[in-house]
Amino acid sequence: MSYKYLGKINSPEELKKLGHKELPELCKEIREVLIDTVSKNGGHLASNLGVVELTVALHRIFNAPDDSIIFDVGHQCYVHKLLTGRYEAFSTIRKENGLSGFMRPDESVYDPFITGHASNSLAAAFGICKANEISGNKATAVAVIGDGAMTGGLAFEALNNIGGSKSKIIVVLNDNKMSISGNVGSFSKHLKKIRLKPAYYRFKRGTQFFLKSVPLVGIPTYKLISSIKKSLIRQVYQNNVFETMGFKYIGPVDGHDIEKLETAMKIAKTHNSPCLIHAVTVKGKGYSFAEEQPGTYHGVSAFDTHDGLVMKNSKNFSSVCGDYLCEMAKNDNRVCAITAAMAIGTGLDSFAQKFGERFFDVGIAEEYATTFASGLAAAGMRPYFAVYSSFLQRAYDQIIHDTAIAGLPVCFLVDRAGIVGDDGETHQGVFDAAFLSTVPGMTIFSPASYSELEDCLKKSLTFSTPVAIRYPRGKEKTPFFSDSAEFSVFNNGGKIAIVTYGIISSNALEASKRLKESGILNDLIKLNQIYPTSEKLCSKLCEYDKVYFFEEGIKSGSISEHIISKAGLKNYSITAIDDKFVPAMSIDVAHKKFGLDCDSMVSLIAGENNG
Amino acid sequence: MSYKYLGKINSPEELKKLGHKELPELCKEIREVLIDTVSKNGGHLASNLGVVELTVALHRIFNAPDDSIIFDVGHQCYVHKLLTGRYEAFSTIRKENGLSGFMRPDESVYDPFITGHASNSLAAAFGICKANEISGNKATAVAVIGDGAMTGGLAFEALNNIGGSKSKIIVVLNDNKMSISGNVGSFSKHLKKIRLKPAYYRFKRGTQFFLKSVPLVGIPTYKLISSIKKSLIRQVYQNNVFETMGFKYIGPVDGHDIEKLETAMKIAKTHNSPCLIHAVTVKGKGYSFAEEQPGTYHGVSAFDTHDGLVMKNSKNFSSVCGDYLCEMAKNDNRVCAITAAMAIGTGLDSFAQKFGERFFDVGIAEEYATTFASGLAAAGMRPYFAVYSSFLQRAYDQIIHDTAIAGLPVCFLVDRAGIVGDDGETHQGVFDAAFLSTVPGMTIFSPASYSELEDCLKKSLTFSTPVAIRYPRGKEKTPFFSDSAEFSVFNNGGKIAIVTYGIISSNALEASKRLKESGILNDLIKLNQIYPTSEKLCSKLCEYDKVYFFEEGIKSGSISEHIISKAGLKNYSITAIDDKFVPAMSIDVAHKKFGLDCDSMVSLIAGENNG
Repeated sequence: MSYKYLGKINSPEELKKLGHKELPELCKEIREVLIDTVSKNGGHLASNLGVVELTVALHRIFNAPDDSIIFDVGHQCYVHKLLTGRYEAFSTIRKENGLSGFMRPDESVYDPFITGHASNSLAAAFGICKANEISGNKATAVAVIGDGAMTGGLAFEALNNIGGSKSKIIVVLNDNKMSISGNVGSFSKHLKKIRLKPAYYRFKRGTQFFLKSVPLVGIPTYKLISSIKKSLIRQVYQNNVFETMGFKYIGPVDGHDIEKLETAMKIAKTHNSPCLIHAVTVKGKGYSFAEEQPGTYHGVSAFDTHDGLVMKNSKNFSSVCGDYLCEMAKNDNRVCAITAAMAIGTGLDSFAQKFGERFFDVGIAEEYATTFASGLAAAGMRPYFAVYSSFLQRAYDQIIHDTAIAGLPVCFLVDRAGIVGDDGETHQGVFDAAFLSTVPGMTIFSPASYSELEDCLKKSLTFSTPVAIRYPRGKEKTPFFSDSAEFSVFNNGGKIAIVTYGIISSNALEASKRLKESGILNDLIKLNQIYPTSEKLCSKLCEYDKVYFFEEGIKSGSISEHIISKAGLKNYSITAIDDKFVPAMSIDVAHKKFGLDCDSMVSLIAGENNG
Repeated sequence: MSYKYLGKINSPEELKKLGHKELPELCKEIREVLIDTVSKNGGHLASNLGVVELTVALHRIFNAPDDSIIFDVGHQCYVHKLLTGRYEAFSTIRKENGLSGFMRPDESVYDPFITGHASNSLAAAFGICKANEISGNKATAVAVIGDGAMTGGLAFEALNNIGGSKSKIIVVLNDNKMSISGNVGSFSKHLKKIRLKPAYYRFKRGTQFFLKSVPLVGIPTYKLISSIKKSLIRQVYQNNVFETMGFKYIGPVDGHDIEKLETAMKIAKTHNSPCLIHAVTVKGKGYSFAEEQPGTYHGVSAFDTHDGLVMKNSKNFSSVCGDYLCEMAKNDNRVCAITAAMAIGTGLDSFAQKFGERFFDVGIAEEYATTFASGLAAAGMRPYFAVYSSFLQRAYDQIIHDTAIAGLPVCFLVDRAGIVGDDGETHQGVFDAAFLSTVPGMTIFSPASYSELEDCLKKSLTFSTPVAIRYPRGKEKTPFFSDSAEFSVFNNGGKIAIVTYGIISSNALEASKRLKESGILNDLIKLNQIYPTSEKLCSKLCEYDKVYFFEEGIKSGSISEHIISKAGLKNYSITAIDDKFVPAMSIDVAHKKFGLDCDSMVSLIAGENNG
């Protein structure tokens, strides 16, 4: 399809040349491309539909790439990509060798910083801002952050540092009244209050006029009025958390009115100190299905644009986990569930409905979630914190300090463990086995099937110490069931062992069979409890002439390394992700690329053992 | 010395029986014990001197251990220990098998949660509060947090969650106008503003009276006055960040006036919603040296109580680092230094004075520090983030996501790497080698001497990717210099290799010599760049019959494990910290306990190689 405007915009320069009357049509084109592409590739739809006008205004008022515009979380950077020379390539978004679904400096000079995990944009923008100051560069740094991401501690730390400075930096708060699901906490209540106030830069003149016209009636009243005046002005202008934190506040501004946005941005540019523009947007704007269910359309797989959706909540590891946790909560009123703004993603939505009192959505705040869970556990509860593997990285210190030193029975439900596919580098769950296994007293399970996941959950209640249960994105491949054992042996009877765990166990099982068929006898040792390593496993592995490890995780610090050094294995090979990040590609392709698919396994082992 | 009051207080019950007139004498006794004990054992002095009256009031108004009182960071829990049955044992504080310098649930029922790292008290207290609610327990949870710790993102995440709830929980802000050194950021400016306001619960009646007495003068003025009234009240009461975040605010209260504190706490107890008491204290109160230099007296080694201090800023790894960084900054104006409230501890004070524009104290905010540094690097600077090893755990995700994926040249100066001594479990730097070596593209150096540290710093500027330089607490033992090599060999010529790095290299060098003297020839391989492992090192190690690894860090995920699996070593032993936390004890004793002293090394190797 060829578009009247969009096809001609190769950089923000062309955008600046358009008249205001042409912009609605451009925005319409952008929304069509967004819906069309995301319906094919999957991706973040609702958040991007909400920032069409905002992004257009930003690129008309600021001069990227000289000015650095950082879109937090990247969930809202598709429009930015369309307007900065990536329209032609846009159909490749989130595909192997295609555009990233997030901001990527190695993709474009218009992407100054990586944004995949929430809440980092302010800190990054301020780093760029200070670097500009030091080197005498007059360019402006702009961070665009959603109200959800603003609840992360990292964003607050940045507000504190930026607001305490005298630097020229602009924060655009994209207030769509939503985190990924609904927002939580006092901050969002506070935003709701400010949203109802008249806009700052309009009201100012009005108030002053009104106050001047009131007749003065004697000294006491005069003083009173004078203090009213200041007070009222402060009341309206300053009584919000951003002013408190040292920012000039501009807003609230209708985030779908380009002219108003442009005015606000022009005013912000006149300030030589930290400035915050509060833009109020509608998540999913312009696509009725998404406006009605912005949570569902936050991040989606491919879908039919006419019908609306998408995933019919079909059974997957997350849903199995959520359902089983409900069973546990029914029978044990100590069972609590915690999520960091991922109730739907982690399958906890039905727990939330059934056990509201014991369900906690803490916002995008994984550190808090971990310490809070540890507090619950210290007082006798059995907390389950369901969290994506890559986001749990944020809580490494809290796991060590708040959970593990006291040995508290917090259970980490590590969702999206392993390779996640199209989200790419920032979201791969390839570090959890490594970093969790550095924590003294931690037990880690890696179920390979739904029933193993349920069994691990059941078992977790028998622990009085920290436990992590890690499971992959998506669906079961093979209905393994290893009972409660640390490992299970699929015995073909040879002197070669294949050791693996998690979802790639299916690939290994198939490889094991094919090797046997071609005369290479071998045993598949499928780990269920991957850490700590038992003496029993060590003795078992010492029986083999050679042990082949396959891990869907980083090699340095891997479970394989722990086992090898503990068992004192002499002849082995590790196939894992070696000192690199895993870019966006489908899970199957990634397995192939890293030697974790059945063919690669067979080829490696057959190559060394034939003849 | 026997004290009139303190000796008789075995629990808060006895404290509650004292009359107000007796309390000043008790507080005097407490201060004497604090100064006397810390002068002998070292520890946190100024912060504890500041909370004497506050702690007395807390234990008179609340009923611990039923009510949970959590002192953030633990730097301020000594008085609490003295009043909860630990007076007799207090002389053992921070000694092996003695009292911990922080809160420890395994030490006393009065310590509900571990607090060693800043900013976790609110989240932990809210966990306990919700657990109490769920189980129908009417006890109150109280978090006592300093204004410094309040700037950590974890504390903000908790404010957001607590303030958004309707739960009964009390936060006591101990506002001593200081972090560890001076406070930074807009939050501390804001606190300064509120401190100057009249106290809430007194002023309330006064204002209302004043407003009622103003004569009404016609409708418009009436309306105005009515809105003034509301406005003024809000202005005074609500226009602070805590009200904004959903807390009832009580204060500011003189934190050294026990009766006023008790009144504030009684009022707080009447609220059935989150409540914050703002207590203003003087850090170091009652000891002139500490009042004058609260930063210096924050955490101290043993000192002379009459003279004052203590460390004459004698040369140590931190000071060498800070001094050399100044040299680098002089010659290269891209060099920036960042600290998270540890300018003095990390030796950056002189950098701060000389290169103010390129020095950033970001408050207790390690995540922000890392992302901000990455932003600086993205815009062409060369940022050096100096941080204690155990606190860098907080930035694991930011290191991966914000620094490493884009391969930015941020240099982490990992101070207090290895065993730190008397601070115990919470502060040991035993995880950094493990977690940093999971990060793709990271290079890690572990200099064993001052000149090696300087050489690593120099070398770091030649990298265009992330680098970590880890060095121990305290002083150099042996003036090693390995030039720029990855490793150096101290050649005795045998078929046994000893592999180690960092400060215990001195122990290994001595062990190597003693072994040789007793006829056991061996080579000492001292690593300087500990990660990634080179092929050259692998080939070298394969020359030996047996390799003995010694590491002052956690075994699971250790450098030894990486080397073994990469080199395919067949005969080796790892001596490291195996799946446990290292409690408080002197560094030498800890080395002995974990087999990392010279004697243990000799004994292990001689035992296996004699005859």
